[in-house]
Amino acid sequence: MRLENASKNPNEPERRPSRVAIDRVRPEVDGGRFPIKRVVGEEVEVSADIFADGHDVLCAVLLHRPESASRWTEVPMVELGNDRWRASFQVAAQGHHLYTLQAWIDPFQSWRRDLQKRVEAGQETAVDILVGADLIAQAAVRASGAEVDELAECAKALRRDSKSNLPGAVSLALDNRIAALAAKHADRSTGSLYERELRVVVDREKARFSAWYEIFPRSASPEPGRPGTLQDVVARLPYVAGMGFDILYLPPIHPIGCAHRKGKNNVTSPDDGDVGSPWAIGSREGGHKAIHPELGTFEDFHALVEAARGHGLEIALDIAYQCSPDHPWVKEHPEWFRIRPDGSVQYAENPPKKYQDIVPINFDTDDWRALWEELKSVVLFWIGHGVRIFRVDNPHTKPFAFWEWLIAEVKREFPDVLFLSEAFTRPNVMYELAKRGFTQSYTYFAWRNTHWDLTQYFRELTRTDVGEFFRPNLWPNTPDILTEYLQFGGRPAFMARLVLAATLGASYGIYGPAFELCENKPLRPSSEEYLDSEKYEIRHWDINRPDSLRDFIARVNRIRRENVALQSNARLEFHPVDNDQLLVYSKTSEDGGSTVLVVVNLNPYQRHSGWIELSPESFGVPAQQAFQVHELLTGARYFWQGPRNYVDLDPAIAPAQIFRVRRHVRTERDFDYFL
Amino acid sequence: MRLENASKNPNEPERRPSRVAIDRVRPEVDGGRFPIKRVVGEEVEVSADIFADGHDVLCAVLLHRPESASRWTEVPMVELGNDRWRASFQVAAQGHHLYTLQAWIDPFQSWRRDLQKRVEAGQETAVDILVGADLIAQAAVRASGAEVDELAECAKALRRDSKSNLPGAVSLALDNRIAALAAKHADRSTGSLYERELRVVVDREKARFSAWYEIFPRSASPEPGRPGTLQDVVARLPYVAGMGFDILYLPPIHPIGCAHRKGKNNVTSPDDGDVGSPWAIGSREGGHKAIHPELGTFEDFHALVEAARGHGLEIALDIAYQCSPDHPWVKEHPEWFRIRPDGSVQYAENPPKKYQDIVPINFDTDDWRALWEELKSVVLFWIGHGVRIFRVDNPHTKPFAFWEWLIAEVKREFPDVLFLSEAFTRPNVMYELAKRGFTQSYTYFAWRNTHWDLTQYFRELTRTDVGEFFRPNLWPNTPDILTEYLQFGGRPAFMARLVLAATLGASYGIYGPAFELCENKPLRPSSEEYLDSEKYEIRHWDINRPDSLRDFIARVNRIRRENVALQSNARLEFHPVDNDQLLVYSKTSEDGGSTVLVVVNLNPYQRHSGWIELSPESFGVPAQQAFQVHELLTGARYFWQGPRNYVDLDPAIAPAQIFRVRRHVRTERDFDYFL
Repeated sequence: MRLENASKNPNEPERRPSRVAIDRVRPEVDGGRFPIKRVVGEEVEVSADIFADGHDVLCAVLLHRPESASRWTEVPMVELGNDRWRASFQVAAQGHHLYTLQAWIDPFQSWRRDLQKRVEAGQETAVDILVGADLIAQAAVRASGAEVDELAECAKALRRDSKSNLPGAVSLALDNRIAALAAKHADRSTGSLYERELRVVVDREKARFSAWYEIFPRSASPEPGRPGTLQDVVARLPYVAGMGFDILYLPPIHPIGCAHRKGKNNVTSPDDGDVGSPWAIGSREGGHKAIHPELGTFEDFHALVEAARGHGLEIALDIAYQCSPDHPWVKEHPEWFRIRPDGSVQYAENPPKKYQDIVPINFDTDDWRALWEELKSVVLFWIGHGVRIFRVDNPHTKPFAFWEWLIAEVKREFPDVLFLSEAFTRPNVMYELAKRGFTQSYTYFAWRNTHWDLTQYFRELTRTDVGEFFRPNLWPNTPDILTEYLQFGGRPAFMARLVLAATLGASYGIYGPAFELCENKPLRPSSEEYLDSEKYEIRHWDINRPDSLRDFIARVNRIRRENVALQSNARLEFHPVDNDQLLVYSKTSEDGGSTVLVVVNLNPYQRHSGWIELSPESFGVPAQQAFQVHELLTGARYFWQGPRNYVDLDPAIAPAQIFRVRRHVRTERDFDYFL
Repeated sequence: MRLENASKNPNEPERRPSRVAIDRVRPEVDGGRFPIKRVVGEEVEVSADIFADGHDVLCAVLLHRPESASRWTEVPMVELGNDRWRASFQVAAQGHHLYTLQAWIDPFQSWRRDLQKRVEAGQETAVDILVGADLIAQAAVRASGAEVDELAECAKALRRDSKSNLPGAVSLALDNRIAALAAKHADRSTGSLYERELRVVVDREKARFSAWYEIFPRSASPEPGRPGTLQDVVARLPYVAGMGFDILYLPPIHPIGCAHRKGKNNVTSPDDGDVGSPWAIGSREGGHKAIHPELGTFEDFHALVEAARGHGLEIALDIAYQCSPDHPWVKEHPEWFRIRPDGSVQYAENPPKKYQDIVPINFDTDDWRALWEELKSVVLFWIGHGVRIFRVDNPHTKPFAFWEWLIAEVKREFPDVLFLSEAFTRPNVMYELAKRGFTQSYTYFAWRNTHWDLTQYFRELTRTDVGEFFRPNLWPNTPDILTEYLQFGGRPAFMARLVLAATLGASYGIYGPAFELCENKPLRPSSEEYLDSEKYEIRHWDINRPDSLRDFIARVNRIRRENVALQSNARLEFHPVDNDQLLVYSKTSEDGGSTVLVVVNLNPYQRHSGWIELSPESFGVPAQQAFQVHELLTGARYFWQGPRNYVDLDPAIAPAQIFRVRRHVRTERDFDYFL
């Protein structure tokens, strides 16, 4: 097999292949198939194994650009040892940002390194100077402007001085300015460009840091007996904003179907006055682009969006792609549903269970293009009405490819739109939805209650590649989830879970007022459904009850806003403690400048104390120097010292403590006369 | 953006994308960029995450074929839980074998599963039977031959009986034969084919299981004072084969250069009679395709290859792509070397160190195609003279792409050729060379002496993806490496390192007779070079010395041959022991049928004992049943029971024990009358 005979030989390279390998690039999700996620202003730290045969000096740069820019920006990479290289860049604007790597062998730098060694060893260097002169002359050919002459002059001087003035030649050859010029005009043509361009989806800050509050508008009336409206939600805004939330999420506000409507507590035989589930979307009064007449008008909706903005709140709507049998689509587009041989429309079921008030959309339809467009138009419709955040119901029962298309389409035009995935299913499926584009995701948090469970799960979410694409949003409760921990743990359980959600997760949410009022009665024993669930009836909540957690929640949300360390999950660390009923963790701000330490007593029934192990140096505190920890819920201040410190938490008083670590404690050495 | 307008929208799929995701396929090296390695007859177990939205039943198959075959063979995959699927295939012949995965949603199986649930719940099923009839009728359209009619008949019968004979229809619908036919003719058109075809390089068995012996032919003479020849090597064959080795590796046998020849102990001023380093290849008498006249002729070489075969030995040659300044290439192809500005040829150096007896090849030459071809022709030349195994000197100083090309080219024509990479450098570079095609690789084994070091390193080599492409070959010594452990540990150190190499590694080698004669004098303190190294002079070895390890080595090699568990690294496991001076590990055969347990006292000076922890169940021994361990070096048999057992090793007697675990120990329950 001859090398010349290229067409016949699949092994044969057409030009001399690069000697440089670029491998194990991080971050990179599934070989670059999916983007990583960041918010505006964040750093992307990129590292890779970069190496070649032999012992030549390598150079590497990180290349990055907004997708819309035509030119790459270069950042030199630094070698960390053992072939690992690193550099980072900041993402400045919403949208897509690209990055890749380039590396090459630099003969000039190799030569310069060797020359230094030869000089130090007192070896003869005249011929080496000539070698260097050739390399500099080659750099001159690649240079432009005044630098051509500067390099050419240098090469000439080296050739001349190699005979007559060797010390002068050596010092010119090792000159930093020449090294910089030669590096600038290095020959990269035989180097390697990483084979993939990797992608960052850049969102606004709320994608990372958000506090959600879920409320059923029809239960928002201040008067028992009168159904709530969007106007009542407006009146409720000061209450929600007062607790410090920034997203107000409403379950579907569309007309509710009548066919097979469920009664209170999900019974199949409703009473006359039963209001049905908001997720049974669509009636003669309209579908996903209509508002339930009893809630109000589009005018009311616009007023709500506006008023919410005035309180620092954004309205998030529910996107539930499913229909009541009365939905207009069922008549207008029967081809989007499964029609059974008896002519009926296939309702939702999980045999032998039947959900006859819901008909699922058939994504396997041959008319899928029109269907996808219509579903997209729903999102665009509400964007047109001022909504920028969507909580998506059960996305794991619709095709991954559909979500990838929908979210990309919407965000291309509206990069500030955020999608929260409500998928409670197997980890692969939840992660896949995040990879395909969801901004945030519900998690298993509600069911993680022990030291081991929480530690393992949050290490997986924050210390592995998962953290690059999956942004957890932690909900201690939802209208579907009243955990046993909350059912049996009383008020301390609600407080502990609130603190865990709000401090383990930069994004979290609660379903209220059930949460702050510590509603904990299940439909029946071992069920996670609420008794008298708002999903099927209108509830009246006494939000001014004195035992409400509203002030506690307000304090926790204020702590979140005032402590940048709690606004990201990037630097979450768990600390050892000698009592597994306690959970101890810290978050540190990206710049390392501030640290918040949280201690939670996971046992809502009993007082627990323990010795926790810290490494004060990691907070910037010298090893044996005392430091102050400021407990932000109570305002108490403690002095700690060294790696072991004592904590004691009585759930009847407070099941959690949130400490701000204050570095400096004055000592006598701070006085002038000590110096 | 309309879906119809395909050309303008990069997000828009052309056909309805598959709902099935195939992810985290194992084994897969660097996203399929590099092949995995197996030997003929081995299994390839393939697993992957395979999942879709919703709750439909999935089917998946593993597809595989020899590269030369045009059709895939299908193996059904089995779900292991949590979306993980698995199947395996066997590779039957040398060369390349391909594999990939296919998965699809099977509506018939989903329907059948649901029908079963409905029937169990006593629900009405008449309409469901009609749904199934439609699915079976669709399968009939995809079927061929008699199966068309069989399926069509079934659909017809179901439709008929759904009204008149529902129990009969249900039992026909759930019939296994129908399920098998429907599965066989499932609609895969909307499924997913994994995006990559993955590759296996299949070698002959020696790639995995080999025992190497290195010898300098010029030191093989039985008479002191007379230089050894290839004929002397023939006479030495019974000795080497008698120790149980199967590969005899010779350092370069080519003419040795005179220019800057090194003297004894690597001095730069040789004496007249000094013979030079075999790695300073090339003189007026020829280069890489010539034999040093003092060693013999090509006839002698052919005789050696033949005689070796008769003793069950293969000859391995050294491929060292470097030249003495006298090599014919230097004159004929100056363009393949670096010429300095003073006209001299650049010799090898690592500034300030100089190696003037060697000139390196310049792989950056513009004439690289001709160079690569010439270097390939060297390998083909020796293949033409009966050699199939090459030990490659310092491959890490030549471009990765060159090796990938060379090895692929050679193995395409000669798939039985094996290449051993002699790269002692950073892990990334060693692994890259293995990925690019080297069959086996030298390792850091020589410097791994403690419990922690050995455990960590061999877990990395055998329990991670590294095991898919990197086949370790363990050498306790080489002509370049006389470790401090051997220098100071005496005979027990040699015995311990021999057992470690031969049982931790399915492939290993020694440099003899230095090894079996326990040669341990270094050039100077803290050097790893041998004093009076054979690299620079001829040595005479008294191979019949009574303190030789030859019989011990023969016993260890016999144990390797008789115990299939030691012939692979796939199932190496380390076991806890309460004394870190001891190392305890086991290897189990691929079929799980036999286990060998090795205990080594790593301290060559002191007797050590300890309690080891095993899980007898993992060897197939019931938890509390006694089992026999048969020590294969001494023939002693011990009875052990349960997870904790005692060992005691005196290095002065034997620093290692190799146990064959015998499952069955007779008890009174084995007698008939006990039943």
